[in-house]
Amino acid sequence: MRTELDCVPCFVRQTLDSLRRVTMDEAVQEKVLRTVLKAASDMDLRQSPPAMGQFVHRLIRAETGDPDPYREVKQRQNRLALELYPRLAQRVRCASDPLGAALRLAAAGNVIDLGVKSGVEESQIAEAIEASLEAPLEGGALDSFRRAAELGRDILYIGDNAGEIVLDRLLIEVLGPARVTFVVRGSPVINDAVMADAEASGMTALVKVIDSGSDAPGTILEDCSADFCARFRGAALVLAKGQGNYETLSGVERHMFFLLRVKCAVVTRHIGVPTGSLVLAEHSPGGR
Amino acid sequence: MRTELDCVPCFVRQTLDSLRRVTMDEAVQEKVLRTVLKAASDMDLRQSPPAMGQFVHRLIRAETGDPDPYREVKQRQNRLALELYPRLAQRVRCASDPLGAALRLAAAGNVIDLGVKSGVEESQIAEAIEASLEAPLEGGALDSFRRAAELGRDILYIGDNAGEIVLDRLLIEVLGPARVTFVVRGSPVINDAVMADAEASGMTALVKVIDSGSDAPGTILEDCSADFCARFRGAALVLAKGQGNYETLSGVERHMFFLLRVKCAVVTRHIGVPTGSLVLAEHSPGGR
Repeated sequence: MRTELDCVPCFVRQTLDSLRRVTMDEAVQEKVLRTVLKAASDMDLRQSPPAMGQFVHRLIRAETGDPDPYREVKQRQNRLALELYPRLAQRVRCASDPLGAALRLAAAGNVIDLGVKSGVEESQIAEAIEASLEAPLEGGALDSFRRAAELGRDILYIGDNAGEIVLDRLLIEVLGPARVTFVVRGSPVINDAVMADAEASGMTALVKVIDSGSDAPGTILEDCSADFCARFRGAALVLAKGQGNYETLSGVERHMFFLLRVKCAVVTRHIGVPTGSLVLAEHSPGGR
Repeated sequence: MRTELDCVPCFVRQTLDSLRRVTMDEAVQEKVLRTVLKAASDMDLRQSPPAMGQFVHRLIRAETGDPDPYREVKQRQNRLALELYPRLAQRVRCASDPLGAALRLAAAGNVIDLGVKSGVEESQIAEAIEASLEAPLEGGALDSFRRAAELGRDILYIGDNAGEIVLDRLLIEVLGPARVTFVVRGSPVINDAVMADAEASGMTALVKVIDSGSDAPGTILEDCSADFCARFRGAALVLAKGQGNYETLSGVERHMFFLLRVKCAVVTRHIGVPTGSLVLAEHSPGGR
């Protein structure tokens, strides 16, 4: 998915929001913001939006001297999700359609994302997740996913954020952990899940976890490790979580499923469902 | 008032919103947006926010080849306000405090402003204006303004937007038109009132109208004509309408009053009243 002009004001706002979360030093805030504006003035709009996110957050880490400014945010999000986990696991076990319930909860876990909308309250997260069990799963791909999950010998599950990764466990437990490989980012970017979050969330105790080799807040294949790319090409079933993975992989030539909560007008237009929707979308080679 | 970092994402968003109102040509939209990003990366934050607005809208006019892209918007806003005028004039005449009522209505007329929030509906404008009669007038300057208005031999009334200029007449009729000089912008910028709007609104039939000599969406004295500056310095009483005039004049060393509706977080912090408030503020030399 290419970057639209609408993404540009959003980059600038997100840069400032992120800077304020990670440093009180106004000189650093101003320097990074000016550098991002300059970069945005020259940017290649054929790149997907997470390419700019990668640039912005590399710059923030370099200028603040902090290799993981969202470390505490991620720990808090993991703890919050772990508190919610037992009750949600019970809901999935008792659901008439455990797969449908787990897909909704995993998608709703995507609300734990600082990338798009800053200042999400913990109580809002819990509410949004509970409400998701009654929400429609847009995209019309549930039956197709159910068949693919029945047949697939191995599943590559590309994760998104910290916190959310705990709710991904609900879906993986329904899918059968033995055949799942979970993917985290190669190194910290915003609040995206890295290996430390896979450990804190209990994911490493459940399935094999690898990293993408990239610090993009999405999956830019040219930036990923050869090992990741081989697994991505070879997996029987790929499920990619969240907007960042959708934005970077929706133009890639392989069959896969996207599971996300739509959080901006640009993705709303791209997918054709209202902002806030939970979506399970099937993507085929030759699809946009 | 200097430009804050918070103003920067707002400039970028406003640039895109404005571009979409005035041209469908995506190449022009992209070119202007990139030029604005580049300019913002180098901007002098000691300037007031309307200095960037002046730059952005000069660029939009140059690139679209349209010297007044908001002409029709302004005409529509004037017509809308003229439809509301007779009823509102009746409300002022029957008010227990006509001056307080007219100040509220003139401040609420400031809701007709595309500069800060795009996509204001006509029905919202009418509602906001009606509701203003019951709203508090923040700033604590009503008594002081009443005394100044009783004593002042001449009043310089610096206008803001088209549409709003019709409601300014309500206040000028209470103040006594004979001693009022009304100021419009020197040439078109966004939907700010220019001489054509003073004519369409009935303002030229009521009082002497001059222009500032500048195309800034505010009053940047260094950019204004010598005639305007002499009148500004010499007037017994100056009343400046709207955020653009507040942002550009609140650091100037002369006594004056500001009448505005607060429409962004930066001005909210600067004045210390909630966003959406109607404010009549007294500004003294040496004030910020």
